[in-house]
Amino acid sequence: MFLEQIKQPNDIKNIAPENYNTLAEEIRQFLIQSISETGGHLGSNLGVVELTMALHLSLNLPEDKVIWDVGHQSYTHKILTGRQAGFESLRKFGGMSGFPKRCESDCDCFDTGHSSTSISAGLGFVKARDLKGEKNTIVSVIGDGSLTGGMAYEALNNASRMDSNFIIVLNDNNMSISENVGGMSKYLNNIRTADNYLQIKEDIYHSLLQKSYGNRVVSTIRKTKNSLKQLVVPGMFFEDMGITYLGPVDGHDIQGLLKVFKEAKRCKTAVLVHVLTKKGKGYGPAEKHPARFHGAEPFQIENGVPKKLKEKSNYTDIFSTVMIKMGNRNSDLVAITAAMPDGTGLKRFRNTFPDRFFDVGIAEQHAVTFAAGLAAGGLHPVVAIYSSFLQRAYDQILHDVCLQNLPVVFAVDRAGLVGSDGETHQGIFDLSFLSSIPNMHVLAPKNKWELSDMLKFAIKFQGPIAIRYPRGAAYDGLEEYRSKIEMGKSEVIYEEQDIALLAVGSMVETAEIIRKNLIESGYSCSLINARFVKPIDTECIQELCKNHSLLVTMEENVSSGGFGQKVRQFVDGISKETEVLEIAIPDEYVEHGNVAILKQELGIDAASITQKILERKQSVKA
Amino acid sequence: MFLEQIKQPNDIKNIAPENYNTLAEEIRQFLIQSISETGGHLGSNLGVVELTMALHLSLNLPEDKVIWDVGHQSYTHKILTGRQAGFESLRKFGGMSGFPKRCESDCDCFDTGHSSTSISAGLGFVKARDLKGEKNTIVSVIGDGSLTGGMAYEALNNASRMDSNFIIVLNDNNMSISENVGGMSKYLNNIRTADNYLQIKEDIYHSLLQKSYGNRVVSTIRKTKNSLKQLVVPGMFFEDMGITYLGPVDGHDIQGLLKVFKEAKRCKTAVLVHVLTKKGKGYGPAEKHPARFHGAEPFQIENGVPKKLKEKSNYTDIFSTVMIKMGNRNSDLVAITAAMPDGTGLKRFRNTFPDRFFDVGIAEQHAVTFAAGLAAGGLHPVVAIYSSFLQRAYDQILHDVCLQNLPVVFAVDRAGLVGSDGETHQGIFDLSFLSSIPNMHVLAPKNKWELSDMLKFAIKFQGPIAIRYPRGAAYDGLEEYRSKIEMGKSEVIYEEQDIALLAVGSMVETAEIIRKNLIESGYSCSLINARFVKPIDTECIQELCKNHSLLVTMEENVSSGGFGQKVRQFVDGISKETEVLEIAIPDEYVEHGNVAILKQELGIDAASITQKILERKQSVKA
Repeated sequence: MFLEQIKQPNDIKNIAPENYNTLAEEIRQFLIQSISETGGHLGSNLGVVELTMALHLSLNLPEDKVIWDVGHQSYTHKILTGRQAGFESLRKFGGMSGFPKRCESDCDCFDTGHSSTSISAGLGFVKARDLKGEKNTIVSVIGDGSLTGGMAYEALNNASRMDSNFIIVLNDNNMSISENVGGMSKYLNNIRTADNYLQIKEDIYHSLLQKSYGNRVVSTIRKTKNSLKQLVVPGMFFEDMGITYLGPVDGHDIQGLLKVFKEAKRCKTAVLVHVLTKKGKGYGPAEKHPARFHGAEPFQIENGVPKKLKEKSNYTDIFSTVMIKMGNRNSDLVAITAAMPDGTGLKRFRNTFPDRFFDVGIAEQHAVTFAAGLAAGGLHPVVAIYSSFLQRAYDQILHDVCLQNLPVVFAVDRAGLVGSDGETHQGIFDLSFLSSIPNMHVLAPKNKWELSDMLKFAIKFQGPIAIRYPRGAAYDGLEEYRSKIEMGKSEVIYEEQDIALLAVGSMVETAEIIRKNLIESGYSCSLINARFVKPIDTECIQELCKNHSLLVTMEENVSSGGFGQKVRQFVDGISKETEVLEIAIPDEYVEHGNVAILKQELGIDAASITQKILERKQSVKA
Repeated sequence: MFLEQIKQPNDIKNIAPENYNTLAEEIRQFLIQSISETGGHLGSNLGVVELTMALHLSLNLPEDKVIWDVGHQSYTHKILTGRQAGFESLRKFGGMSGFPKRCESDCDCFDTGHSSTSISAGLGFVKARDLKGEKNTIVSVIGDGSLTGGMAYEALNNASRMDSNFIIVLNDNNMSISENVGGMSKYLNNIRTADNYLQIKEDIYHSLLQKSYGNRVVSTIRKTKNSLKQLVVPGMFFEDMGITYLGPVDGHDIQGLLKVFKEAKRCKTAVLVHVLTKKGKGYGPAEKHPARFHGAEPFQIENGVPKKLKEKSNYTDIFSTVMIKMGNRNSDLVAITAAMPDGTGLKRFRNTFPDRFFDVGIAEQHAVTFAAGLAAGGLHPVVAIYSSFLQRAYDQILHDVCLQNLPVVFAVDRAGLVGSDGETHQGIFDLSFLSSIPNMHVLAPKNKWELSDMLKFAIKFQGPIAIRYPRGAAYDGLEEYRSKIEMGKSEVIYEEQDIALLAVGSMVETAEIIRKNLIESGYSCSLINARFVKPIDTECIQELCKNHSLLVTMEENVSSGGFGQKVRQFVDGISKETEVLEIAIPDEYVEHGNVAILKQELGIDAASITQKILERKQSVKA
């Protein structure tokens, strides 16, 4: 086992070149074995085994810096920097993160999670190096999918002005999480499929320069400077911007990669190395179903089938089903995803209404303003974007949708704690950033039926409206509570007195348990499903203040700008007798781990909240 | 006067072609005359007179749609749609907006203000048109500066897949607000300066296809499909993405423009019409000093000199001066602007420390993550971005800077009400979106000296920190209050009892007046300069609660997620005796107009706030 010889950074340099492929195979088998047990990102990691090895062979870590765009493809990098043992606890609470983390290793120089940041960060490292007079090598590794994100282009546009070395590795697997879209993808594909480019280059070059076909043409070619290069060099797109292009090169050929990295390090400019890889490489099921093995649950190695079959439907499924139903009824309904037809559940909508479905690539900003245009043009768009990715489009929601009060529905999946993906992916800010925007309406369903009702309500509503719902199994309790959704109205589930629990979305399920606890402790307790975070139901709260001494607001969101602050502000204005206890996520980033454990750690599980309420009641008595 | 014949949309079509140039000249003179009196965007509007005329001649408004990127260049469009009379009240409260507004005219189909949104919105209109089976023409007009914004590229990437007509007019004046930067700019410049492209195209085309130079080359050229096009067509960058390129065409030649628009309308794809214009065209001072005439104050026509000389220094000047001072002391200090070296005051830093200054173009997302990279690489970056534009980088601040707790200073200029630019430019959300982010620190200075002190404090601080300060003349009162800035500590200015005014930044000046009013009315009143919005000074507030019955929080920010909510939350937890009155901007967009008038309208001027406080005190007594 060569893998056993890798105990710390740069150990790979002790492996003899003839054993590189064996080591690659060992890494691949380790990843398949390990992820089949813990779950994690498989396809993208299998695709970059050789690429990562070649980078580690070409660089000196930690002096040299590698920035992994998105970061979920950094598993081999973790292995090669001595973190193989960490895979047992991969993405578990207190265990190793599935993303690069500066706190884990000095070979992780920049934390990533969202797409398209690596070139910007890399440029920062490059300028810092140059100003400090240092000589290390900076490499940003970015996928072709991430290249659809606008900020990658903003960074390329700036990289073009470089007069020192900066290596951008384009890891081109012809995939985002789902299939790639757009002009850039088409362009890369053209390069990929052109056979024998080097030969063509030679041929044309010699023909043009050596054959005689009139001085005028030679002179005009000289005038246009780059036009010859345009004819013969793949990667013109990049060369046009002033970025040296090398490639395409086979991303599974370590020797070829070593050669091209050697060449890349010699450039005195930004250089883009175009590497062709295969997502899921070496594991049949992952090669065949790349989207399924993007972020995988534990699976059976022999066939790739998940070990645990899904027992309950999740919110994404409900969203998916209702979209089809509403799409049939309403020909104006259109749906937009940013590279997530599978993850958001819009794949079925795409298959049923291909003309009314738009996958814009990893481009949340465009997704939202495009939706604003669709709405201004008379259609009714639903934009489905995960909570943490929607942060990218904050200005577009504020400036393009809400300012014009346009009827755009935001389906905000993965809101609240998401678990194993950790800090970068927790959807714990959306209630704050969405509800501070004028004209916006924000809803959260308590259970699967309510998501369906809310979505139908939202699609009929003539203004900006967002529904946020969590990852994972949909709550299927409280089926009997299904009153009509009305603008700004909460739903009273249990009406008693003294303590009132005002719970947002997923917290209704938790509140049910808390209420039982409180009743057992001898308290009387109402339970209100808030339904609306913006506007809050002032009428209901006013009623509650009449016969409750304590209102407990509960939300899976940070406190600042959240539901509790709004309720407190209102209660303060109308009642001196009623106190507000606000349950929210503290002002900090939340690491990876099982959601139930995270809730305990954050003090927002049923037991902790019960405890806090009892303490508050007892302190009042005392 | 042909201009008098323009009373409503499409009236321009009654003007005889031989009079087009005269009309253009009349419009130009009207704009210069009118803006010299009211102030407004001059340079960009003078540049697009003929372009706008040609669009109006080529289209049928309002059926056809024109989306103006950024929108400040829409003055001629306003004139040609019957709004010439509105220029008297341009950008005044209740008067005509300086940007397209759907509420002003049905010929304004989409509100704009921030950069780079028009292609996304245009694509939305196109898809809506096609799905509804309509036949109108959609045009997005975008400047070359706006093309440095990533979302424009996201949209181009999607426009490439079009199978129906969509016209993108690239208004190329080789300028952002300041000079352009980056690879795209270089690329466009190459096209611009290549002489006689059409001739070259002809020559090379014929040479390659008709001369005999070996079948192998012809065959390889055929294989590479696009390579011939790469040689002979300007605009390959766009063609590569699948977007038809037409141009470049002289943007001041109406007949030439009409011809190219006719051709563009025939395309069954997205088509980019590359139009070359001159910013400030026809007015000497504006041609010479484009940045100065970007957004101009009223000026003397004969020489372009502002009518009113600036009496007081503004916050931008202070920032500019301190940056130089700190730059001399600290070689790690670097500065970043997104296309605003003039507006942010960083021009002097650029001139003094060219290696440590980065203008990244209109690319706020990249600016922030680039800063994160610089900080991770060991430097100390200051990112100067206007409050409303910083909204674009919300995710980057959260995900790239604060998550890693990196020492990046955000200089948030134009925070609070900005006045005549109106809804899209008001900086009234930053306290909310910045202070909901973990690890962030948020400060606001009360006067010019305090901005200086805070900036020095921030540059020494080892974490993410933002200073927000308003547009316009810096407050120069309270000079004697200049205690040391300490993390999270407020500054007590007047210490009395009963009523405490807790004012943020610009509101300290207002609070001074209010305090005098209250004292005149017989109340005792403390005045606290909050200094920190995050973290709030809990110790100070705790002290205040001891001998004040009313805390009045004051901020130029929306209420949701702002300073007041944080203070209220804290006070609620510690005191039953002290009430909180929260003064903030209501949950709505704020239109254009003089800041003093806007404050009155919003109820946040000294008189209105005094009134509210007196009412509250009297209701408590009653």
